[in-house]
Amino acid sequence: MAENKTKASIIRCAKGIRDSIHKEKKPQLKFPKRSLSNVAYDEAEGYFKLKRGKVTRTLTYNTVKTFAQTLRMMALSKEAIDTDEEVTKREAYYVSKNWGEARFDEQPESDTVIEDIEALFEVNREQLGFIPEEKGGEVAGELVVMDRDRQSGKRLEIDCTKFGSGAYSIPISVEELEFRTKADFILAIETAGMFQRLHNHSFWRTANCILVSMGGVPTRACRRFVRRLAEENKMPVYAFVDGDPYGYGNIYRTLKVGSGNAAHINEFFCVPNASFLGVTPDDIEDYDLPTHPLIEVDVKRAKDLLKNDPFFKRHKPWQKAIEKMLKMGQRVEQQAFAKHGLNMVIEKYLPEKLAHPEKFLP
Amino acid sequence: MAENKTKASIIRCAKGIRDSIHKEKKPQLKFPKRSLSNVAYDEAEGYFKLKRGKVTRTLTYNTVKTFAQTLRMMALSKEAIDTDEEVTKREAYYVSKNWGEARFDEQPESDTVIEDIEALFEVNREQLGFIPEEKGGEVAGELVVMDRDRQSGKRLEIDCTKFGSGAYSIPISVEELEFRTKADFILAIETAGMFQRLHNHSFWRTANCILVSMGGVPTRACRRFVRRLAEENKMPVYAFVDGDPYGYGNIYRTLKVGSGNAAHINEFFCVPNASFLGVTPDDIEDYDLPTHPLIEVDVKRAKDLLKNDPFFKRHKPWQKAIEKMLKMGQRVEQQAFAKHGLNMVIEKYLPEKLAHPEKFLP
Repeated sequence: MAENKTKASIIRCAKGIRDSIHKEKKPQLKFPKRSLSNVAYDEAEGYFKLKRGKVTRTLTYNTVKTFAQTLRMMALSKEAIDTDEEVTKREAYYVSKNWGEARFDEQPESDTVIEDIEALFEVNREQLGFIPEEKGGEVAGELVVMDRDRQSGKRLEIDCTKFGSGAYSIPISVEELEFRTKADFILAIETAGMFQRLHNHSFWRTANCILVSMGGVPTRACRRFVRRLAEENKMPVYAFVDGDPYGYGNIYRTLKVGSGNAAHINEFFCVPNASFLGVTPDDIEDYDLPTHPLIEVDVKRAKDLLKNDPFFKRHKPWQKAIEKMLKMGQRVEQQAFAKHGLNMVIEKYLPEKLAHPEKFLP
Repeated sequence: MAENKTKASIIRCAKGIRDSIHKEKKPQLKFPKRSLSNVAYDEAEGYFKLKRGKVTRTLTYNTVKTFAQTLRMMALSKEAIDTDEEVTKREAYYVSKNWGEARFDEQPESDTVIEDIEALFEVNREQLGFIPEEKGGEVAGELVVMDRDRQSGKRLEIDCTKFGSGAYSIPISVEELEFRTKADFILAIETAGMFQRLHNHSFWRTANCILVSMGGVPTRACRRFVRRLAEENKMPVYAFVDGDPYGYGNIYRTLKVGSGNAAHINEFFCVPNASFLGVTPDDIEDYDLPTHPLIEVDVKRAKDLLKNDPFFKRHKPWQKAIEKMLKMGQRVEQQAFAKHGLNMVIEKYLPEKLAHPEKFLP
């Protein structure tokens, strides 16, 4: 299990430090450098990846507090793994209040140390036993999730076709889940409202798919869930989000390749086989959709994507789409289909699009 | 069913307008005045309630557009009820794009018209067929939710003890759900992180309760779910939120009595029998909890609660608690118990508190 590997790494690292001290050498920790300058986009791998830049932190008079905090946090991680606990980032901060001089004054400090340790061991926070505060994502459709009762350990089968108008809420940590499905694809939806519309009409049954509601930029739990589900079942992932710079650059880009400032974990939290169903600037014309004008911040964001984002810089079709959006000066939302009838999206748009996934944006 | 009553009201109202026109009188609509000045807090009823102030809207040259929009929206509501559709507020806005001159330019305009109609018929938006965009709340524990398959109409039983580490996600509209439970109480929790901790340790089994994650200020769906569940099963609701002015004044107050600017629907969306388990200013001393200083906006909000909020003005114990918080100058979070061990909250705090619900704040 990943946890045992992580625990072994923690013990090995801690032993190294103890050995240095016994040999009267200054203990050192080597972290990958975490910044955009140390990130590469490899299309074959499919995510923003750390390059080899490293930062060395040596124990000195000036670094003693951070050094102690890092070791304390490693110990907390080991304890979490040993006791099968999940510790939220906020809880980790509060646990430190009992560490005397090594306590954190503000949570951003403890978050940074957790991120350092993630990068140090090249694992994700969940493998260290740390979980974010926010849950993420709802699921409905042709999927059985296998989990266990937390007390008895008894195996549970959770059938995501059996929740009526409700849904399965993805837990904060999804590492232990297993899946059984015969669905053809995963549809990752931006808004809870659109998810509910498709769910109310059992679109997952008609289209033999799994619906996932991302609720804006997908959380780590949601991305990890979609990634594992897609990878283990060799299943394509189609994104259905608003046609605006935020939808393209933040929601979809984060789902597909991860984010710039957390590149050390994108390997686990990206969905490289995702493609973009819509809403595209072409759809505005093809389906006569009502739009809203791009405001200044939209234009700035779109230009920034074209100029600085390694993902969009690599993909011609995306450059064309974003340039078209800028030229039209318009953005479009996934609810816009309602102009032509509430269920036009179900009866016409999605079936027509899904007939040609080869035309989706990369 | 409520829907049929709503539909009857819509038809009656529309007929009245048609009759006025046939009699060559100016058609009128009478709306309750929606502002804090027209709100009363009645402890027996338990929620912010509209007083009798009314505004009359007469069809004139100046009001013709709003008047037409109101009638169009009533027609959309009737259509939604007839076809068993749920229409998000955003979709309603887009549907209007096909109403020619009566179309809305911005969503806040269409939202206002929907709220007008809610107030006009004294129903909630969900009964009109309109639903908010956002989903709200996760549930785990000793509860079976009864729903139906949306295609076949087949009855579904959703057992909220069988979700492993995941949870049941509350749908946007909960009017049709039914419940079966032998739980002793509902624990409404502010953060997803604390919910996950209690859920991972099957606290709902130990305490024979239902856990609900509110994720901050509870959405309408979440409040309506808790309200119906509590009322139909005569079950107390205990709130477990951060000990700060936002937790008291926004999260708990909204859960219990509703909000000021939506008083026409508080009757449906409040949980009058909720009481406040913690975290209280007394808990800071009793459990030696780490705190954070109140910042200026906290102090301002707390003073505002004491001076202007009809709910807190009515309840002495709350005034004492808020005054104590101001005197200490400190706020406390529900994660703070982690200082004394990750599961202190489960093993000590909650059991000790739950032994004396009569001491909870009102």
